Amino acid sequence: MLNKKIAILGAGPSGLAQIRAFEAARLAGKKNLPEIICYEKQADLGGMWNYTWRTGLDKNGEPVHGSMYRYLWSNGPKECLEFADYTFDEHFGRAIPSYPPRAVLKDYIMGRIDEEAVSKYIRFECPVRWVEYDKESELFTVTVMNHKTGQQETDTFDYVVVATGHFSTPNMPYFKGLENFPGRVLHAHDFRDALEFKDKDVLMIGSSYSAEDIASQCYKYGAKSITISYRSQPIGYEWPEGIEERPLVTHFEGNTAHFSDGTSKAYDGVMMCTGYLFHFPFLPDDLRLQTHNCLYPEHLYKGIVFQQNPKLIYLGMHDQYFTFNKLDLQAWYARDIMLGDIELPNAEERLADMKVWQDRHQALDGSDDQNIEFQGDYMLDLLAATDYPEFPIKKQGELFKQWLRDKDEDIMGFRERTYASTITNTMATELPKPWLEIKDDSLESFMSLDFVEVTVD
Amino acid sequence: MLNKKIAILGAGPSGLAQIRAFEAARLAGKKNLPEIICYEKQADLGGMWNYTWRTGLDKNGEPVHGSMYRYLWSNGPKECLEFADYTFDEHFGRAIPSYPPRAVLKDYIMGRIDEEAVSKYIRFECPVRWVEYDKESELFTVTVMNHKTGQQETDTFDYVVVATGHFSTPNMPYFKGLENFPGRVLHAHDFRDALEFKDKDVLMIGSSYSAEDIASQCYKYGAKSITISYRSQPIGYEWPEGIEERPLVTHFEGNTAHFSDGTSKAYDGVMMCTGYLFHFPFLPDDLRLQTHNCLYPEHLYKGIVFQQNPKLIYLGMHDQYFTFNKLDLQAWYARDIMLGDIELPNAEERLADMKVWQDRHQALDGSDDQNIEFQGDYMLDLLAATDYPEFPIKKQGELFKQWLRDKDEDIMGFRERTYASTITNTMATELPKPWLEIKDDSLESFMSLDFVEVTVD
Ligand SMILES: Cc1cc2nc3c(=O)[nH]c(=O)nc-3n(C[C@H](O)[C@H](O)[C@H](O)COP(=O)(O)OP(=O)(O)OC[C@H]3O[C@@H](n4cnc5c(N)ncnc54)[C@H](O)[C@@H]3O)c2cc1C
Ligand SMILES: Cc1cc2nc3c(=O)[nH]c(=O)nc-3n(C[C@H](O)[C@H](O)[C@H](O)COP(=O)(O)OP(=O)(O)OC[C@H]3O[C@@H](n4cnc5c(N)ncnc54)[C@H](O)[C@@H]3O)c2cc1C
Ligand SMILES: NC(=O)c1ccc[n+]([C@@H]2O[C@H](COP(=O)([O-])OP(=O)(O)OC[C@H]3O[C@@H](n4cnc5c(N)ncnc54)[C@H](OP(=O)(O)O)[C@@H]3O)[C@@H](O)[C@H]2O)c1
Ligand SMILES: NC(=O)c1ccc[n+]([C@@H]2O[C@H](COP(=O)([O-])OP(=O)(O)OC[C@H]3O[C@@H](n4cnc5c(N)ncnc54)[C@H](OP(=O)(O)O)[C@@H]3O)[C@@H](O)[C@H]2O)c1
Repeated sequence: MLNKKIAILGAGPSGLAQIRAFEAARLAGKKNLPEIICYEKQADLGGMWNYTWRTGLDKNGEPVHGSMYRYLWSNGPKECLEFADYTFDEHFGRAIPSYPPRAVLKDYIMGRIDEEAVSKYIRFECPVRWVEYDKESELFTVTVMNHKTGQQETDTFDYVVVATGHFSTPNMPYFKGLENFPGRVLHAHDFRDALEFKDKDVLMIGSSYSAEDIASQCYKYGAKSITISYRSQPIGYEWPEGIEERPLVTHFEGNTAHFSDGTSKAYDGVMMCTGYLFHFPFLPDDLRLQTHNCLYPEHLYKGIVFQQNPKLIYLGMHDQYFTFNKLDLQAWYARDIMLGDIELPNAEERLADMKVWQDRHQALDGSDDQNIEFQGDYMLDLLAATDYPEFPIKKQGELFKQWLRDKDEDIMGFRERTYASTITNTMATELPKPWLEIKDDSLESFMSLDFVEVTVD
Repeated sequence: MLNKKIAILGAGPSGLAQIRAFEAARLAGKKNLPEIICYEKQADLGGMWNYTWRTGLDKNGEPVHGSMYRYLWSNGPKECLEFADYTFDEHFGRAIPSYPPRAVLKDYIMGRIDEEAVSKYIRFECPVRWVEYDKESELFTVTVMNHKTGQQETDTFDYVVVATGHFSTPNMPYFKGLENFPGRVLHAHDFRDALEFKDKDVLMIGSSYSAEDIASQCYKYGAKSITISYRSQPIGYEWPEGIEERPLVTHFEGNTAHFSDGTSKAYDGVMMCTGYLFHFPFLPDDLRLQTHNCLYPEHLYKGIVFQQNPKLIYLGMHDQYFTFNKLDLQAWYARDIMLGDIELPNAEERLADMKVWQDRHQALDGSDDQNIEFQGDYMLDLLAATDYPEFPIKKQGELFKQWLRDKDEDIMGFRERTYASTITNTMATELPKPWLEIKDDSLESFMSLDFVEVTVD
């Protein structure tokens, strides 16, 4: 029998985890591994972590994937996203702080990717154009645009793994009067450099991670004032002077925003931190996941296997506390399904399993503590089934809870806190000065700081 | 025999001209007209003329089509783009100036579109996802995403008319150091409001229509300084103080741009006015036009019929002096081919015809005068073959030449000049004050100005 053929769509942390999972099997001596082709829209690895100065459309005319900006630092402790098969100690050879900037985390993610695997499997600048499934042959046909050659390529596959992320297509609501706002109106997806808003009055709409982090950035880099406008509830931290929260905008008149509490204020710029859409323009209806950002998207058995067509795998579609290590667990599980090492239950059984999780998901009270435990339990479920190295998921969950308390205590200072690795027990080092004072976020600059060893007493 | 079925992709001036052409045939008593479906990505008619405050991706996650900005006025005289079957007099009922703002021209374009035709033919918020051609059945399969229903729709057609424009996908070059520029970097496609650059030092790269017009806008709305950086040659007008031209940027250091003449200057923002890519993500290689912006794109017989598959029509793919009336001529010609009223020569003959035009195109000396005459001759060729109302193309060409002289004389004042309609002989009225002083560009505001009748002596 011929080896199976697998298409991985996207080479971000999820797609790379899928490649790594198969590589791990190969190194473990597994035979008859499938042939893999990974199609990546960008010119390089790393997905969201691959910073780009571009906005809108990229050099090939494709929608820009990157939503990350300059000066972005990890918003959660690195100890909560550590790969179980490749620790921070192994990568950096010394202890570093708990909240590194983007470039440092990217360096870590890239560290475990073998150069050879990259050139063997990944086709860069190849956005997927269209996917079809043929019931008779039981094969997928994948068509990509190879921008390097200017020609399209079409190939057939037994399995398709969709790992294209879901934080790239802005959800951009309209507010009356926006079309006449005499200044910049953008979505967080297009935000790149906080210095653009130095000495400016900026309005952010939305009250989740993006609003919180971009408000903090703009404050750090000298915005005159920042207003965060919330729909459901304020973020609620003790913001420094210069950041305030107001209820939802009702409309704009010229450069003035009116809020639902009757107040108003003039702004230089408006930024929508209103989240992202699930968007798969390359998938026909019968293969397309239709869901929203939550902790247990529908239609996915074990959070990854598409119910209507179980030869279609989706990775990384959950909203997140846990990130890299959760993606690893999904990729290992997906690998074992594709290898036949985990037997796939029939449709009814899969539905029953999904229902159990959906019911639990529905019953959550919305508190972070419950959410974190729920996502941890989901991961434990996956971990039990594969040979991914065991790691203390519950302990990491406790760190997440601590992280939230730390943010509550000091939203501008939480990135100065340190935690111990749950895998190596290495204690993170401290930043030598306050986060607000460290403005160069490059890898070189960060790694040349004099990190301070924490003395536990 | 069943009636033929035609898909029109896009409802901008080109797609609307195609609908109008068939409507004209229907009104003229023509029988057995084809069934038409027009798929439009946006929520409304008008293509490029449909202003949007959005940039990047639209509310459905699709690339924003609009490249027009607030305060955009026609950059050529309206007398050169007048429809021969629907005059400015007929629409406005009185003489108006020669250079109206966008909203006024949009109103004119929309004026001849029948409400009924719109609801009969056009499906809004339906971006085309994928097109295929089946050699056996000789039919195209068109799949669109209907964002109104959330479901995709697939249908088959005898002919496909691609009218999706080619000024929407930015050509965005990279210059060393751009990734560290501490301010906004954008393409003209994403430019919306000149007030964003009030009191700022702005750098524009490129030296064609966008650079020229956006520089003028920014000047008008109070930018501190504007530098236009050219690759081939300066635009060369006598710019007012505050606008200057420099040779090409070599690289950036922080907010400082370095130019190839050794000079440098610090900027607050960088705008690429570097043109657009032909981009048809919904077309497979065998149907996809691969060309660049020029006066006679390759592979198109009579500038519209795709050589490899003559049941595929492309409208509006030329670079332009003439616009709306040229699009009309193309649409009428395309209609008559699809109706069989114009017989399509065989592939070899089509090639020979294309070669004649390509040779003439190659031989052009690059001067505007020759270009204008060339495009005029192309239009005369089309005009001769259909029942589109005759109009004085050469006379309009002479107006274009006058337009260029007027710009040469006064780049900030040319929009105050007036010309007579070549169709109705109506003389345009004058703006009551200088263009630089008229800052509200809305339809209402413009139409309530006290236009001045020109007394010819
Ligand atoms: C602003 C922001 C900040 C974040 N900060 C953090 C953080 O601090 N810590 C953290 O752990 N997580 C963070 N995240 C979450 C981040 O999304 C995940 O860490 C991780 O990148 C998800 O990996 P992924 O591979 O699933 O998706 P992505 O990283 O988004 O990768 C998807 C890949 O698919 C490619 N692709 C897309 N469409 C196509 C196509 N049609 N054809 C081919 N390829 C395609 C993309 O180019 C990309 O490379 C952040 C996210 C955002 C938006
Ligand atoms: C900044 C700017 C200023 C201009 N100013 C002038 C001017 O002053 N005078 C002048 O005469 N001309 C001007 N033009 C030229 C302008 O492009 C033409 O006037 C005219 O709009 C071309 O018509 P079109 O229908 O070919 O393309 P467009 O007007 O671009 O229309 C194409 C249509 O196709 C739709 N579409 C695109 N992709 C899809 C898809 N996948 N599925 C379904 N629908 C799709 C779009 O939404 C759009 O409605 C300007 C152009 C630009 C960029
Ligand atoms: N490393 C970092 O520092 C960093 C920075 C930014 C983002 N991220 C990551 O990026 C991902 C996305 O985060 P996100 O904050 O962009 O999206 P998100 O978590 O999905 O939040 C969307 C926000 O927009 C609001 N919203 C949606 N539609 C709205 C409307 N019509 N009007 C008003 N408000 C509306 C929501 O309000 P309701 O609450 O009312 O629904 C919510 O507050 C997360 O995974 C996050 O971790 C990380
Ligand atoms: N109504 C209006 O007022 C108005 C306003 C704007 C635009 N428009 C229309 O919009 C259309 C597009 O015009 P456009 O000016 O955007 O595009 P364009 O006419 O195609 O011009 C592109 C410009 O970018 C330059 N360029 C391309 N690549 C470059 C690179 N790598 N480095 C430096 N320069 C580079 C070109 O320089 P070279 O000369 O060296 O090739 C050229 O000057 C036209 O039809 C125009 O009529 C109308």
